[in-house]
Amino acid sequence: MGVTMAGSSVVYHSLMWCCSILPRWRITCYKGWTSAHFASAASYTTFHENWKVKSSKDSRHRVTKLWHVGLFRNRVFYCTSSAGAWEVPLTSERYGVQRLPFSHVSDKDLAFFEHTVPGRVITDPDMLKPFNVDWLKMVRGCSKVLLKPRISGEVSEILRYCNERNLAVTPQGGNTGLVGGSVPVFDEIILSTALMNQVISFNGVSGILVCQAGCILETLNQYVEEQEFIMPLDLGAKGSCHIGGNVATNAGGIRLLRYGSLRGTVLGLEAVLANGRVLNCLTSLRKDNTGYDLKQLFIGSEGTLGVITAVSILCPRKPKAANVAFLGCGSFAHVLETFKVCKGMLGEILSAYEFLDDECMKLVQKHLKLNNPLTGEGSPFYVLIETSGSNAGHDEEKLNNFLEQVISSGLVIAGTLATDETKIKALWALRERITEALTHDGYVYKYDISLPVEKLYDLVCDTRARLGKSAKNVVGYGHLGDGNLHLNITADSYQQTLLNAIEPFVYEWTAKYQGSISAEHGLGFKKKQHIYYSKPDEAVELMQKVKAMLDPRGILNPYKTLPTQGSH
Amino acid sequence: MGVTMAGSSVVYHSLMWCCSILPRWRITCYKGWTSAHFASAASYTTFHENWKVKSSKDSRHRVTKLWHVGLFRNRVFYCTSSAGAWEVPLTSERYGVQRLPFSHVSDKDLAFFEHTVPGRVITDPDMLKPFNVDWLKMVRGCSKVLLKPRISGEVSEILRYCNERNLAVTPQGGNTGLVGGSVPVFDEIILSTALMNQVISFNGVSGILVCQAGCILETLNQYVEEQEFIMPLDLGAKGSCHIGGNVATNAGGIRLLRYGSLRGTVLGLEAVLANGRVLNCLTSLRKDNTGYDLKQLFIGSEGTLGVITAVSILCPRKPKAANVAFLGCGSFAHVLETFKVCKGMLGEILSAYEFLDDECMKLVQKHLKLNNPLTGEGSPFYVLIETSGSNAGHDEEKLNNFLEQVISSGLVIAGTLATDETKIKALWALRERITEALTHDGYVYKYDISLPVEKLYDLVCDTRARLGKSAKNVVGYGHLGDGNLHLNITADSYQQTLLNAIEPFVYEWTAKYQGSISAEHGLGFKKKQHIYYSKPDEAVELMQKVKAMLDPRGILNPYKTLPTQGSH
Repeated sequence: MGVTMAGSSVVYHSLMWCCSILPRWRITCYKGWTSAHFASAASYTTFHENWKVKSSKDSRHRVTKLWHVGLFRNRVFYCTSSAGAWEVPLTSERYGVQRLPFSHVSDKDLAFFEHTVPGRVITDPDMLKPFNVDWLKMVRGCSKVLLKPRISGEVSEILRYCNERNLAVTPQGGNTGLVGGSVPVFDEIILSTALMNQVISFNGVSGILVCQAGCILETLNQYVEEQEFIMPLDLGAKGSCHIGGNVATNAGGIRLLRYGSLRGTVLGLEAVLANGRVLNCLTSLRKDNTGYDLKQLFIGSEGTLGVITAVSILCPRKPKAANVAFLGCGSFAHVLETFKVCKGMLGEILSAYEFLDDECMKLVQKHLKLNNPLTGEGSPFYVLIETSGSNAGHDEEKLNNFLEQVISSGLVIAGTLATDETKIKALWALRERITEALTHDGYVYKYDISLPVEKLYDLVCDTRARLGKSAKNVVGYGHLGDGNLHLNITADSYQQTLLNAIEPFVYEWTAKYQGSISAEHGLGFKKKQHIYYSKPDEAVELMQKVKAMLDPRGILNPYKTLPTQGSH
Repeated sequence: MGVTMAGSSVVYHSLMWCCSILPRWRITCYKGWTSAHFASAASYTTFHENWKVKSSKDSRHRVTKLWHVGLFRNRVFYCTSSAGAWEVPLTSERYGVQRLPFSHVSDKDLAFFEHTVPGRVITDPDMLKPFNVDWLKMVRGCSKVLLKPRISGEVSEILRYCNERNLAVTPQGGNTGLVGGSVPVFDEIILSTALMNQVISFNGVSGILVCQAGCILETLNQYVEEQEFIMPLDLGAKGSCHIGGNVATNAGGIRLLRYGSLRGTVLGLEAVLANGRVLNCLTSLRKDNTGYDLKQLFIGSEGTLGVITAVSILCPRKPKAANVAFLGCGSFAHVLETFKVCKGMLGEILSAYEFLDDECMKLVQKHLKLNNPLTGEGSPFYVLIETSGSNAGHDEEKLNNFLEQVISSGLVIAGTLATDETKIKALWALRERITEALTHDGYVYKYDISLPVEKLYDLVCDTRARLGKSAKNVVGYGHLGDGNLHLNITADSYQQTLLNAIEPFVYEWTAKYQGSISAEHGLGFKKKQHIYYSKPDEAVELMQKVKAMLDPRGILNPYKTLPTQGSH
């Protein structure tokens, strides 16, 4: 019954090296010709007489390395980076981590793996390199073996064996995480979901998709779009990230505002426990109150409680109409006020309310050559509003009424509106490619914070004031509609003194306002020690009990998510 | 900072006996005068020339007993029943349950409780009666003491003591559950949340409400409606049920289709564990990925893992416009096809898609004197569609286009449309009061099933065919949009032979089509042994481990949710 989504067995062996830098996010290659199509928008419809039609140029970037290639129909998705793995210091050295007493992989172990997943055991050090380093080039492990199971039965065999042998395992999806959760810290075995890429079923009435964990998000979205549905989540890394990884990290993204979190849209999942037992909670029902909802344990547990091997997910209908407005606001207070008006006037068709500050705009202009679609001197803040609905005429009327209101009241000082797909993508690129622009700006200190919306930008201002010239750039952007700020600080290189000025300041500030120090990225390796800023001791203790119950030997993704015991 | 929601300390002492029967759902009493206002709709707007304007009459019902009275401003909410507690056989006798070796409450224990919650320890057997019986009059315990804490600190003290003394505890909210989960089986101490009825905070920008567990759902809805928001859930028992109980049972209801389940809308909660420790996960953030999402353990655990004492919940904006269409369909296939058309044409404004069969209609006509708003000979099936949106004109246009489509294509044979609140409520009463009508029809065998929508009504037909004349009525209704069927079978009295004909037939049928034997009601006492029809052994085993981890002595709501060990 399975539908092949990507011939990923080809993937590994097709790893290529090219000479141009490509943006990692949503890059499409047609018949060998590569273009960053988000930047290819030609023109924008202006909705205010003073706003002029603008054109943004095609951009060409150099590629140094392609990390992951997934074939789907005629398309190829690339996961790229501009830096080499060899430049990244070993995590264990940079952070001074002690290896836990796990066994080392022996020849006998390799023979077992080869027997279990024949031809899918990778031990070549060069081939292993990209899987040992995170995309941000901040953490690096030294795993000696990567396994590529195709079915949950193989994952079960592998884990049962590793548990008995006391071998540590790091599950890995698209390796697009930002907190070092998906790469080994030492020599953990990498268990890749890349070949678990089958759609199991899709119901065209209910919109329920059941698929293996290794399906790429964008590929799934294309698949369900053909049947007039969309995936309930969307994020910058969609071209590379795996749905299993999305669920394991409880990924948020831009559609959360409209369709809610994965805790609501994931209806079921299959997970393999540390001891190899397969837990089948792969139901396709919107409602199921028979006992405790075990799947929730695995959503957001970052591979530390089990390996997610399949998911059942509720897809919303594909909207018949979509519009994007890109607006300039004179102050953050106006961004907030515009949001209130927007919620009232756009109501059920509002599907995204994103913001970025002018510093972000300057970075995407400088490093990615994207154009600011708004003319004039620039605004201190920009807002991207997306609507999607079932009636184009109604949506446009609502949007026009809203724009009239925010313009006439002075909340918005400039703006542009897009209704066709190419232009919409070009506007989205301004927001979605900030992460990429930042990596070109130097070493990035990344913070993913939840706060009451009113407080959201105060943290950026306070951090900027505190760091002064010791930082290159301090920028703020994110999912305002969800109260989610991405605070990013760049410097020419990693500097411990700068880090000391940022932390624990940012965490203490966040805790003071009852915020979360990880809104949607997870804790992974890099933030696990900071959990106490957002969770009380009792909660962390209980999490540790849950971990001990499900993975008593601690073989699953060690050194991640939960703080080292006794460290508090 | 707390805002008093209900003077529930008054409640207990005001328990009254009247001489007329009142429907349990949403009854309002103004200055001592009682009217069932849902049935008071005057007229309907018809949208088809052949459909005539109808009037439904005011109905007056007799009250035999008021179970719970909560004062809020000038209103009083009643929870009533038409039968006396004394008629209900003891659960332990009817079902042959063995008491577990918990301690018995001693005078010393009572002295401790009196010291902890002075004046709020109920031991009078007459006063305890209504709290020992469920609303359906199917299960009865013999608790000797009921405690009414006001704050989580008191709950903590009580549980710490009970855990040490090995005293079993049954948490109880509005006692509106349908599976016997909220009343004791033996002499468990009843821990009522009735006095924990404070709103802690409400944010008018984000719509996040934080409140204590004992707030009544309808009271909360009125509170947030004053600030232009609504609660994300709505169910028939709203006038009595507590938000803590809703969360503890993961209640579904009619708004789930639009706003998703409590797993997505509950942002945080506070729970007291069996050992008395207070677990504070009461965050007010839409996104928080710091460690495992412990609150999910308590959502839907039916009071067996901890006592929920406060919740933080995301409220959607109050829609500016609401419409209800009540349609007649000639077959269930047409009900399904109408749903598909509806999803496509109403899209984001669709907020409910409910169905009932003609047998349900006949029951509400017969027992509650409600009128069928559709003229003619009646239809085999009825559909209630609710829309809610931010622009009345747009919504009406969408709805009219949709109705034109389904009428012209012959999917719908008759219908009526309501736009004002009174008429909308009158139409909703036809659907919401089916549960009540059933209790007047005799002993009710209730099943709350999730199935793929295509299969939903086949179960009713097959059950009807199987039971023949041994059942009085076999009816089907429910939340079609969520794939949730309420299958109900009535008989003049409880008959073991009839039960044997229904079970395990219904469960086996459901399991065959990968359905859930409890969609939204939970397992409680009555369905706990049937969990294996919907969950594999591995899952149940893991649930039992979770229970043992959080409540090692098993004092919290014993005999509920999980099957007796070794019974499978």
